[in-house]
Amino acid sequence: MKPKTNGSTHQSRPPVVGLVGGGQLARMTLHAAARLGIDVRVLATSRDEAAPAIWPHVEIGDPLDARVLDDFCRGVDVLTFDHENVDPDVIEALVRIGRVVRPGASALRLCDKAAQRTELATLGFAVPPFSVCTNVAEISAFARAHGGWPVVAKAPRGGYDGRGVQWLDGEEQALFALAMAGEQATLVIEPALTPERELAVLMARRPGGEHVVYPVVETIQRDGTCRSTVAPADVDPSLVREASSIAVALADLIGMVGVLAVEFFVVDGALLVNEIAPRPHNSGHFTIDGCVTSQFENHLRAVLDWPLGSVQLVAPAVATVNVFGSADGPDPRALVSEALALDDVHVHLYGKSPRPGRKLGHVTATAADPATAILRAGRAAEILNQGWCGVGEAAR
Amino acid sequence: MKPKTNGSTHQSRPPVVGLVGGGQLARMTLHAAARLGIDVRVLATSRDEAAPAIWPHVEIGDPLDARVLDDFCRGVDVLTFDHENVDPDVIEALVRIGRVVRPGASALRLCDKAAQRTELATLGFAVPPFSVCTNVAEISAFARAHGGWPVVAKAPRGGYDGRGVQWLDGEEQALFALAMAGEQATLVIEPALTPERELAVLMARRPGGEHVVYPVVETIQRDGTCRSTVAPADVDPSLVREASSIAVALADLIGMVGVLAVEFFVVDGALLVNEIAPRPHNSGHFTIDGCVTSQFENHLRAVLDWPLGSVQLVAPAVATVNVFGSADGPDPRALVSEALALDDVHVHLYGKSPRPGRKLGHVTATAADPATAILRAGRAAEILNQGWCGVGEAAR
Repeated sequence: MKPKTNGSTHQSRPPVVGLVGGGQLARMTLHAAARLGIDVRVLATSRDEAAPAIWPHVEIGDPLDARVLDDFCRGVDVLTFDHENVDPDVIEALVRIGRVVRPGASALRLCDKAAQRTELATLGFAVPPFSVCTNVAEISAFARAHGGWPVVAKAPRGGYDGRGVQWLDGEEQALFALAMAGEQATLVIEPALTPERELAVLMARRPGGEHVVYPVVETIQRDGTCRSTVAPADVDPSLVREASSIAVALADLIGMVGVLAVEFFVVDGALLVNEIAPRPHNSGHFTIDGCVTSQFENHLRAVLDWPLGSVQLVAPAVATVNVFGSADGPDPRALVSEALALDDVHVHLYGKSPRPGRKLGHVTATAADPATAILRAGRAAEILNQGWCGVGEAAR
Repeated sequence: MKPKTNGSTHQSRPPVVGLVGGGQLARMTLHAAARLGIDVRVLATSRDEAAPAIWPHVEIGDPLDARVLDDFCRGVDVLTFDHENVDPDVIEALVRIGRVVRPGASALRLCDKAAQRTELATLGFAVPPFSVCTNVAEISAFARAHGGWPVVAKAPRGGYDGRGVQWLDGEEQALFALAMAGEQATLVIEPALTPERELAVLMARRPGGEHVVYPVVETIQRDGTCRSTVAPADVDPSLVREASSIAVALADLIGMVGVLAVEFFVVDGALLVNEIAPRPHNSGHFTIDGCVTSQFENHLRAVLDWPLGSVQLVAPAVATVNVFGSADGPDPRALVSEALALDDVHVHLYGKSPRPGRKLGHVTATAADPATAILRAGRAAEILNQGWCGVGEAAR
């Protein structure tokens, strides 16, 4: 048995985890918690979210409200998150009065994309060219200096699954995007890169630094949204080693506790750090059926300062294809039976009511090779995605 | 894609399953349901049971009360069970008014051990010698005819995990056991057999007869309680084929829908059907981490008349060791961290408060060979079982 770490939450009663956020990441974290007998209380913003539909211990409140968060913390041993929509200053104040919050404020501050890019560049990590802009003149200057329009604009906060990211083809759109960026009126601007591939590394880290790194996964994006993933990524071993090292170095630098996701662009054969997220991540859903221990279980184990689980793949190849809502198609929950008629697919639905383009679930398939895995998962997702165009192509 | 079966519950809205029973089998069924986005309502007898602790859609009521069951059925597409404590006559009445109940009354009637043994013998299956006794004279006569005392007495209903089974060493104990058997005052009496081994077969069957049979598992019992299981059972292939065929034949004969567990004794190299249970079963917990599709997911798929999932093992050997409460030991939920320090073990806790001898969870390990799997799972279970004597031995 490995030695116990100081500061472990080991005690004579079962631990209680406070989970801020009630989306599908929370829902999948709860699946892992229920199995391990971990007591989790969820702070959701609405009963209609994915997690409250399957969990009895839910409070409803605004996680940006300091008093709500303060109340929620009482009686939980450790506070963690399924999203970044919290105020790092509030988190810092909670830590000052002795609350255990994992990850901590410094990791959460990096969820602001402007702060994140600036910090990553300052720390010496290769990132795409970028500029934090607050007016049209700055955006235009950036475009001129980087091959002209279009450029890509990212909202510093609140983006996910392609939301908060847009292409700007001129000054008029730049003005509009700034107006839409709210009070802050700040955008991260970068060139419209066309990466050869996109990769992601998921890793989990305990307070003392013990960590595990999942096999590097390739993510296939369209319109800024991750459509499918394949693990292990079929790239040069040196790139795999480099991506893994970058993730570990980053986690150490920010004192990460929990799962950290690092997304990479491969441009001209070299890695650029695109984005990081200090929580279980969409690109890591393959770990549920594809690895000995899922990212959700390892996130819980990390924030509880428990020994981490094996991240080994359970098959030579694992593919995951996301399921989206269509404009007029039926509810995927009514189509599960047809998808399950395919061999060896794992269907995951998040219990959300369908809306066009809304991510409703994912399908994972394991196989002896990547092509078979993606074909299997893609076929099942296509059945569940009826009416949604384009996903089928990713699977072919 | 396989053709759709007639009578499938496929429809334009997600299906609703009504699950009678709130114990750990329900809890593990809910894990599978949540992942697939299946809407399940649970009828539990108390909020303190294993399932209500992790599920928001729970009604509290007595499943033996016809009105409670009738009310519970409204709005569910199919009714199923995590225990046998229902009245088959009530179930039959529900079916007459058009409710879909799976498994049906004929399978549930066989949960009475007296009816079960009699029926199995009548159908021509090899069973241990037995007699359904209602007085001491009958029990004494059986003992005389089968090598003398002790004999084993089984309560026809309400037994589980060793409860409801006792050894009788003479007429005084026989009298006592009859007095304890309640109004019915009926016991199933059998010789005190010492089987060479005990095996179990789990299978799932859809309404149309499509079925899957899990690899035969060996169960290691002590004091009438299953302590551990190893799959695949290391027995002659002809015995594996025979056990599987018996399970399929039995399921066909009783028109089983859902998971059927068949427990066997091996005596003088031959199979005797010891007991059957028309639901996911304690001996099948290895299927969660050890097979592509768990018994709980396949039970749901079967009762919804959905295509069944692959029952293939994901590793050459899978061992499961149960975790019990000890007299004065700590709550296993506070020891999970230590158990997880061992490599590659899957800890499952049912969220029940510890009581001596109460089953609180199980640990599963997969490995290249049975000895390694049982050693790993056993070590982790031993940590969680602190104070409980004997389980460690099973793992050594």
